[in-house]
Formats: sequence, C-alpha cells, structure tokens
Amino acid sequence: MSKINITFPDGAIKEYEQGITTRKLAESISTSLAKKAVAGKFNGELIDYDQVLNSDGSIEIITKDSEDGLIVLWNTAAQILANALSDLYPEMKFGQGQATEHGFYFDTDNQAGQVGEADFEKITAKMNKIIKQNLKIEKVSYSKDEALALVANDPYQKELVNDLASANSGQVFAHKQGEFLDFSNNVVLPSTGAVKVFKILSVAGAYWKGASSNPMLQRVYGTAFYKQKDLDVELVRREEAHERDHRVIGNKLDLFFVDPKVGAGLPYWMPNGATIRRTIERYIIDKEVGDGYEHVYTPVLANLDLYKQSGHWDHYREDMFPPMDMGDGEMLELRPMNCPSHIQVYNHHKRSYRDLPLRIAELGMMHRYEKSGALTGLSRVREMTLNDGHTFVAPDQIEEEFKKILQLMVEVYNDFDVTDYRFRLSYRDPKNTEKYFDDNEMWEKSQKMLKAAMDDLNLEYFEAEGEAAFYGPKLDVQTKTALGGEETLSTIQLDFLLPQRFDLKYVGADGQEHRPVMIHRGIISTMERFTAYLTEMYKGAFPTWLAPKQIEIIPVKNDLHFDYAAKLKNKLSAHHIRVSIDDRNEKMGYKIRQAQVNKVPYTLVVGDSETANNTVTVRQYGQEDTKEMSQADFIAMFSKDIESYSRQETK
Amino acid sequence: MSKINITFPDGAIKEYEQGITTRKLAESISTSLAKKAVAGKFNGELIDYDQVLNSDGSIEIITKDSEDGLIVLWNTAAQILANALSDLYPEMKFGQGQATEHGFYFDTDNQAGQVGEADFEKITAKMNKIIKQNLKIEKVSYSKDEALALVANDPYQKELVNDLASANSGQVFAHKQGEFLDFSNNVVLPSTGAVKVFKILSVAGAYWKGASSNPMLQRVYGTAFYKQKDLDVELVRREEAHERDHRVIGNKLDLFFVDPKVGAGLPYWMPNGATIRRTIERYIIDKEVGDGYEHVYTPVLANLDLYKQSGHWDHYREDMFPPMDMGDGEMLELRPMNCPSHIQVYNHHKRSYRDLPLRIAELGMMHRYEKSGALTGLSRVREMTLNDGHTFVAPDQIEEEFKKILQLMVEVYNDFDVTDYRFRLSYRDPKNTEKYFDDNEMWEKSQKMLKAAMDDLNLEYFEAEGEAAFYGPKLDVQTKTALGGEETLSTIQLDFLLPQRFDLKYVGADGQEHRPVMIHRGIISTMERFTAYLTEMYKGAFPTWLAPKQIEIIPVKNDLHFDYAAKLKNKLSAHHIRVSIDDRNEKMGYKIRQAQVNKVPYTLVVGDSETANNTVTVRQYGQEDTKEMSQADFIAMFSKDIESYSRQETK
Repeated sequence: MSKINITFPDGAIKEYEQGITTRKLAESISTSLAKKAVAGKFNGELIDYDQVLNSDGSIEIITKDSEDGLIVLWNTAAQILANALSDLYPEMKFGQGQATEHGFYFDTDNQAGQVGEADFEKITAKMNKIIKQNLKIEKVSYSKDEALALVANDPYQKELVNDLASANSGQVFAHKQGEFLDFSNNVVLPSTGAVKVFKILSVAGAYWKGASSNPMLQRVYGTAFYKQKDLDVELVRREEAHERDHRVIGNKLDLFFVDPKVGAGLPYWMPNGATIRRTIERYIIDKEVGDGYEHVYTPVLANLDLYKQSGHWDHYREDMFPPMDMGDGEMLELRPMNCPSHIQVYNHHKRSYRDLPLRIAELGMMHRYEKSGALTGLSRVREMTLNDGHTFVAPDQIEEEFKKILQLMVEVYNDFDVTDYRFRLSYRDPKNTEKYFDDNEMWEKSQKMLKAAMDDLNLEYFEAEGEAAFYGPKLDVQTKTALGGEETLSTIQLDFLLPQRFDLKYVGADGQEHRPVMIHRGIISTMERFTAYLTEMYKGAFPTWLAPKQIEIIPVKNDLHFDYAAKLKNKLSAHHIRVSIDDRNEKMGYKIRQAQVNKVPYTLVVGDSETANNTVTVRQYGQEDTKEMSQADFIAMFSKDIESYSRQETK
Repeated sequence: MSKINITFPDGAIKEYEQGITTRKLAESISTSLAKKAVAGKFNGELIDYDQVLNSDGSIEIITKDSEDGLIVLWNTAAQILANALSDLYPEMKFGQGQATEHGFYFDTDNQAGQVGEADFEKITAKMNKIIKQNLKIEKVSYSKDEALALVANDPYQKELVNDLASANSGQVFAHKQGEFLDFSNNVVLPSTGAVKVFKILSVAGAYWKGASSNPMLQRVYGTAFYKQKDLDVELVRREEAHERDHRVIGNKLDLFFVDPKVGAGLPYWMPNGATIRRTIERYIIDKEVGDGYEHVYTPVLANLDLYKQSGHWDHYREDMFPPMDMGDGEMLELRPMNCPSHIQVYNHHKRSYRDLPLRIAELGMMHRYEKSGALTGLSRVREMTLNDGHTFVAPDQIEEEFKKILQLMVEVYNDFDVTDYRFRLSYRDPKNTEKYFDDNEMWEKSQKMLKAAMDDLNLEYFEAEGEAAFYGPKLDVQTKTALGGEETLSTIQLDFLLPQRFDLKYVGADGQEHRPVMIHRGIISTMERFTAYLTEMYKGAFPTWLAPKQIEIIPVKNDLHFDYAAKLKNKLSAHHIRVSIDDRNEKMGYKIRQAQVNKVPYTLVVGDSETANNTVTVRQYGQEDTKEMSQADFIAMFSKDIESYSRQETK
C-alpha cells in the first residue's frame, strides 16, 4: 500500500499508510484524545470517524467538546429519531434530517396520522432502546438502482437518492443503523450508544425541501448532548429564549404575522406592531433631519442596468430577486440595496464642494432573496425597510463626518436604552494590499481618520486587520441579542469604489473636478430587524413612547364610572395619547391582570373616589403599588415619561 | 353595381351605390354640411373623407368643429411637418407621427444634426409652402415588397411597413402628399390646404416605439387649428398650463425627477418634495388614526395565488407587473391594489360583531404597469403609494360608516383648501340588474343608505344610474384640476364580492356567522398624484405647514448680522421650523427676490435695527409690505399660520 502525508493543526506533517482513519490517527496520538474524539475534519470537511483517508491532506480531530462534535452528535440523534419513527410508524415516509443550531430535526410524512406531543414519550422510549443497543452505524455504498429499489415506497427518499446519485456520478451512500437506512451526506457518530442524553422538543410544519409549492411535511425537533448538565443548560436557555422570542411576543401582543402561503419572509404588521414601527420611523427621520440629513423617497424598482453598473448584479446576484422582463426590452429589478438610488439623487445636480458633506437618507425598502430556511419572524425577511443613509464627502471630511455619525449613533442608542454593544473597526490586510481598492494613500489616511475619531470620542473598539471590504474600511457596532447571540446593529462603511463606478464628481474650491468618497451608514438597521431586536430586549414591555397602547382605563363598575372614564379618555386622546377603556363585563382584578399581560405602561383605575375628586389611580407596568393623583399631575408625569425616552417631534 | 344600406346618426337608413364616399354623402345632404365636413366615421371608426364604402354600415360625418375633426387636422399637420422635414433634411429618417391631445408630433432621426428651435422658422416656412400648394393627399396601396423598396433607406419605416403588412395580410397603405409617403393608418384631410393655422412648439427625445431599449428619436411637437382664434386660445392655455404644470414647478423647486433610463414612471423624490410628501403622510395618518382607523404595513409582494383568488389576475392582468418565478414553484407578484393585503389582516383573527366596523388603513405601495406613453411626472406613475383604507362593516352599518368617511373627506379637503369638487353617486342599472353582483336586497338597501347619508349631510351630488361596478355602488369625488381637466381625487366603493371570494365572516350577536361588506376608500389618492395635484393647485406656493422651506433669513450684511441670524435660526429650528440663512455674497434685494422665486412663505430680513432690538422684519410670500416685530410675536404668528392649515401632530 502506498503512503500519504497528513498535516496536523500544529503544522506537523506525518506519513501514514493509505486507508488510515481518523480513529486510528487519534489512537496513535493518545488514549485520552481517542476517548473524546468522535469524527474528523479532512481538508476542512467533516468526515465520519471511520472514514478511510486515501490522499494527502490536513486533518483535525473532532472531539465531543467542540462545536463540530455537537453537529455530529445531532446528525446522529436525528438518524436515531428517524429509525425509531420508522419502527413505530411503518407507513411513515421520510424527508431529510440533520443538526440545527441548537439540536436536530427530521422531516416526516405519515398519512395514517400525524405525530403529536402525546407521542413524544413512546418515541423517546424507542430511541432510548436504540441507544442502549449501541448499534454500529456503517456507511454503505449503493448504485443508484440498488438504492432506488430500497426506497421504492418512499417518494421523498426516491427524490433524495436521485439527487445524491446525480451529485456523485451514480454512486449513493447511506448510513445503516440496524435495519434503518439514512440516505444523506451527514457525518455521524460510529454507533448509537454515544448519544447520551436527548429530548424530543416539538413538531411543526415544514415544506419538503423548503419550497412552498411542495407538500407540507411534519418536522420533529429535538436536542441532544454528551452530558446531562449540558442538556439542562440548553433547556433553560430555550425556555428563556422562548419567552423573549420576538415571534412569540409578536404573536401574544398581536404585533405582526407571516403567512408562508401568501409569501415567506413577507411580514404583515398588525396595528400594534405598525404603531411601534411608525413611532420608530418618525423618531429616526426627525433625528436625522435635525442632524443635517436630507430625507428622500426613491423607487424600489430600477432598470437592471443600474445594478450592473453598481456591481451588485455581478457580486450579489444570488440574493437578488429575478429581474422582470417588461416586454419592451426593459428589465426591472427590485433593489437589493439603496446606494445606487442615492447616487442617482447625488448625480441629479452638478455638485460643488459647498454641497458637501451631502447627507442623503431614506427609509428605503429593499428586497433580498433569503433562503426560506433562514427566514425568521421579523429578523430575517425578504422585504425590508432600511434606515439607510449615504454621505458624500470630500476625502478630507471623512474624519469629521465619521465622528458626527458616531455621535448620532450613540444618542440614538441612548434613547432606545441600547447599552450592550461594542465597536469593531475593520482595516484592509496590510500584507495583501493588492486585494483592495487601489489607492494606497486613501486607505492609509482614512483608516487613520477613523481611528482618530474613535479615540477622540473616547470609545473603546477592536481593530480587525484584513476584515475590511474591497472598497473601504468600516466600523461595525455589534450588539448582544437578548437570546445570547450577537448581531450587527449599525455600520459605517467607507466606499471608494462606487464613486468611481458612477463617475461621481464635485467641483472643488479650486474650480477643478474631484471625486467624493461615499459613506454608507445605517444607525438602527431595518425596521423589521430593529423591531425584533427591541421586542426581545424589552421582552415586549415597550417604553411608554413606543407602546402600542399607552394607557388602559379601567372603570371599577362600568355602569357607575364609565362616563367619567370616557371623559378622561377624550382628554388624554386630545393629548395624542394612545388610550382605551376596558369596559368589558369582567371583574376589575381580571382587567388589571390583562393590562399587565398586554404590557400596557399605565393602568388607570377609576371608581367612586376618582369620579368624585377628578383623580386617577395609577399603576405602572410591572409595579405592585398604585397612587391616586389629579388628572393634571398624571398628565405631567406621563409627558415626562415620554420626553425622557425620546425627543421625537415632527413639527 | 350593387347597393348598400347606410344608417345615419338619427336612425334613418338610406340605400346608396356601393363605392360611395363620405364626401358624396355629405354633398347629397347639404352644401353647408359638405363645406364643414372633413372625414367620416364608419361603424365607429374614423375614415378618410374620400374612402369608398363597400358594405352596409353606420356613418357619421365628421366636421371641422368636432373633436374628431381636430384629430384629422392634427394627423394631417403631422404629415405636412414630416413632408417639410424630408425636404429640408434629405438624410432624415422618420418614426411615427400623429395627433395628440392638443396637437401633433412626428418622430425623427437625423444623424447629420438634430433639429433645434432655431430651425422652427424654416420648417414653418416650408410647411406653409406645402399648405399653400394645397397638395392632394391620396391613399395608395402597395404590396409589402413594393413598400419595403420605397423605404429601403429608413430602418424605422421598414419596421413600420413590416408591422402594417403583417396586420393586413401583406397589403400596406400609405398617404401620398406630393413626393412624400406616410406609411400609417392615420386618417387625414383630403388635401394640405385645409390646414389653416399651425405652430411648431418644441422638440424632445422619445424612444422609438416608446421602449427604453430602443434608440432615442427626436419628437417635434406642434399644434394646428382651422381658425386663428382657436390657435390663440390654445397658446394661452398652454402658457398657463405650463406655468402650473407640476413637472415644470417640480423641476424649478427641485421636488422630484424621473429618469426613464433608470425607470420610466418611477419618480425620485428630492429632499424638497420628500418633505412635502412626509408632511402629507403624517397628516393623513394622524387624521385617520384619530378617526378610528388602524394603520398597518403590509408587503408589496404576495403569492400570485392571492390575486387569482381576488380576481385581479383575471380582470386586471394587463395593468399588473409580470410575476416573478422564484424557482421553487413560488410565483411572487407586485401588488396592483392593497385590498387583498387588508383582507389578510382581517382574516388573521376570528372577528366578531364587536370588532366592526373594522377600519384597516395603510399608505400602501402598489405597482401598476401604465403604458409608457401615458406616464406623466408624478400624476401617472408605475410605483405609487395610496392613502388606502378598507372598512369591514355589518350590512346595517353601511350608512353610518359611509357618512363618517364623507365627514373625514370634507375635513381633509378643508385642511388642504380643496374647494372645487363635486360628488358623483354611481348605482347599478335598474334595467340590467343581472349584470351586477347577485343580491338584490343588498343593492337596494345600500344604494338607499348612500343617498340618505348624502342628503343627511346636505351634500349636493349627481346620481349616475348604471355606472356602478359589478361588485357594488360607489361615490366618486371629482375635482377640477388646475389645468382645466377633471380627476377622481377620492372614492368610496362598496364591495359585496371580495368578502364572498375570501369567505370573510364575523360572528354576530346571534352567535351565527355573517358576511361583512367591504368599503374601499381613498381620501387623498396616491401620494404621487395628490402632490402633483397640490403643486398645480398652489402653483408651487405651498402653505406654510407644507412648504419644504418655511423661512429664509436674510442678513442685511453677512459680516455684521450673521451672528444674530444664526441665533435666530437655532431658536426657530428648536421649534421644528424648517429654516435656513441665505448668507451668499449677493445683494439683499437679489436674495429677497430669490426667496420669492422659491416661494418661501416667510422671509425675515435682519439688519442693524433687528439686531439691536431683537426683532425681525417679516415679508410673507407674495406680499409687498413688510413688518418689523418681536421674535416672540413672529413665532406666535407663524404657529397660528401652521395651526390654521392642519392639525397634524404625532405625539
């Protein structure tokens, strides 16, 4: 047998017999490593622990305590789930199953009867039996025809076999676990016994292959770990995540909904959600207009040529919607970004140095074709409205403008009470400057300017060399999400390229034409994502200025106190307060609890004393104690509350 | 020769020899008629005066004083223009030419040099010569090959000949005027001498056949009449129309622009226009929210199935954008109307009689594929945002809700100073009730309710029997446009059909399911059309609350009075007033005139006296006299001005 060279993570290269496996490599290194190892990563790709290696390459040994170790575990658990289900439901057809971010799933189709929560116990028992048997999981190879014969009764598996065969010149692999065959490329553990603890969590509908034109299958979700402790932690995390999940809160508070039949990733904002969004929109527009931005409205459609010129069509096509052929030679495209639109605005007039910095802003609607599997409530959607802005500056204005944007950002974060964020400054890779837009001086100067601005404002930041985009350095603001993840809420991106592609110019004080620099900036990202973010951050208890309903008035007795409540409501409405009266035939205590459930900032109870004295008894959301006060005092207190959260005003 | 029967407009039928012409018919009736007649209309279609009639049919004799008489005149003038141009520019190629709404045009392509205004005189002289010659205009027939040989040097004419030939089984007609051949189906006068007075007006670019992918031709415009007096009236009308034209004002005041290369009918709102639009949007949303509407945001895209279910795809397809095939079987469509979206909102919850009337409103963006020839500035566009609302009512709530909408409408008109409008109530045709949605009782009751509401509010209205849509009666509000036309600004449309198509329900007080009625209503139409309408109505002099710039501060001397001006500006800005300082190095008088040209509502001049006394000297737009007053007095006056026009507030 011939020899192969294997490179280890530390750079060491060793020679082995062709046909060696990750298991044997691990064992050759140390027993303790072999005990923890569950799979390999050969040339960057996950492989089964017992997969033979036939060529030179790099190896990484995947252990239980790594992220990849969990993926392999979850792939295996998904397979065990399917194996158990096939035993329990002999008529069941199977889609695909695999690891997710925090567990696993398998898609199923059981015409004879859906799987429900009541079935979880028997499924769990059957899975435990398979685990206890510690069945060896073998990778078997079939010809396409052999494989098709094995899955003759399952249309989904037939389709999968065909897919796999055409991707691999007619050869098909399956993992065999007892009698069960899983046709997939998933990497799994060598035997079922390694799955120590697991839990079946839920079932939900999922289109076959994620396409809404396909049949709806039943997706069974679960999670698994190597240790009980890890499962416990995960279950607590899930509980908390569920409570904060903007989809769950969005449903409870009737903020929005998505109906995949009418359009996946296309949210409908219900009146409550729309009120929050409108308040955010007015706030940010007024804030920006006050800060010297010129807000515009530009069309969501443009000739495809615009995106060819901008480069989006070449580099971003897979995220774009298909162009519409208008029949007269015009191809119209839903914009994936607003920058080319704002360039049109810039170019509509001849610009002079006196016009700069020119700050064009818009709540710009865009469309991006996210994969249906990635779509999530309001946070990952296909139609979105971005708090977008493009500042056109002379090169020597970069630092000052960058600082101005930063200050705006910090003020806005303050108003929304966003406190947990960090700055990340991305430079070009000084060792590979040829990979970037070719203007050495511009890069050097502008990177220094960004750094100087951060220092000047006393902001802490992380410098990431080599993480800039081709066209310029940038600043990202990373926020912690309520669910423990991290996302980019704001970005300030310098762009040397688009001004060149669109031949942007301004006449300088010297009477000559010069090229401006563009600064793309988003403060609060899209209305969709920001609303999702705030919903999770506030756990649905929006501050008064944002709350869809700000005040609930509860008459102690409808028949005696409704008139006073109605007069009070009219008075508050005249102050543009969002207020209603709960005059249902329910007990007062129930109504108060309901107002808490709906997270209404103020509940005003009005009974005999209040009616007689022209007062209200105020209870703030989340507080137990109440206070009787005059109407005027309450309005003053309410106004102060609103003012303290924002300076939104429109006139 | 055989005989044919000709029916006259009065119903009389007379027998004539086959081959008779309109000219002979006119002459057979009276000399005075023959003197005025210029063409015929056979079975509803315009024909040349000397066109022979070979079959039974109805005839109308077209005289000079009719609208059709003008069309024939303008078609002829267009032909004479092309004839003259072909003499003057032997290398010129010709597109199409014909009558427009108020004149005529011909499209031309002269590689050797464009036609400019400087050439109008010689073109006019040449046309006058052709008119004086009183050339006979004959209709000649060619085979396709003969015709192609005649236009061998003109690619556009070749394309036209091919088009005409394939529409008429290989036979092609042209009008021959001296040496000039016009291949078209236009109906023209019998000779050039009948064109008495004309004027060449302008040139502009126009894509060949209106498609932006085609070459840009030069369109030469003119108008013509039978009498000098009519031309004079038309030239005055044009002058006035030009002054009020929202495209002209929009350009002068930098409100918006459209670039057909980036997208015909897709306006870009510049900061000034965007400020007006944003103010209108906030006003109408606040007004509606205060009136019990629930504003939502719904996606501009939906699965095509939604529009199949609504019936739009069957009945409205030609105005819709092409569906986008997303590749996974999903077909997404840009919505042409918002009603199906609001039905989704209604259907998201189970509704009870307590929820009704449910008023769903939105500034809903829609896309309609208007023909490129119909596109006009902001008033006819392809992407538009409608002030849309759908009220879902129990049948017995129709009258009250209709009245409520009417009251809102009148209030809004008041705030915008729209005074010249009339109501038009459309009923079904009582003689053809089978042509309408099949619910006799509903029609009878609801029509009575609408009428009762109008009467109750003491509104004058016109009743149009037989003008209702299939699905319900409606009220239109017709406004006079500044340019003398009429357009529908608002509509209240009852709809019995969509609730059925979408199986809408509510649970009544009786515990049973009932079908609601939908009321479609638009108060101020689309943001695009309403802004165009207001621009023309105000002649660009927007009332203070809408004006993009509300105040211009002019320091008498920049070096002496700028500081005071700057403090004043900050103070006013803090009151959310849109204000700037004109500190250019120009004379004060020039700056004051500029502020008038830009139609800024208030000009504040500040010099020695103002600086010393903390005052401002106020000049209102369009007024000659000025007044010095304290800052506080001015702010009070300004606030009163704003308040008087609107009650827009957002908090």
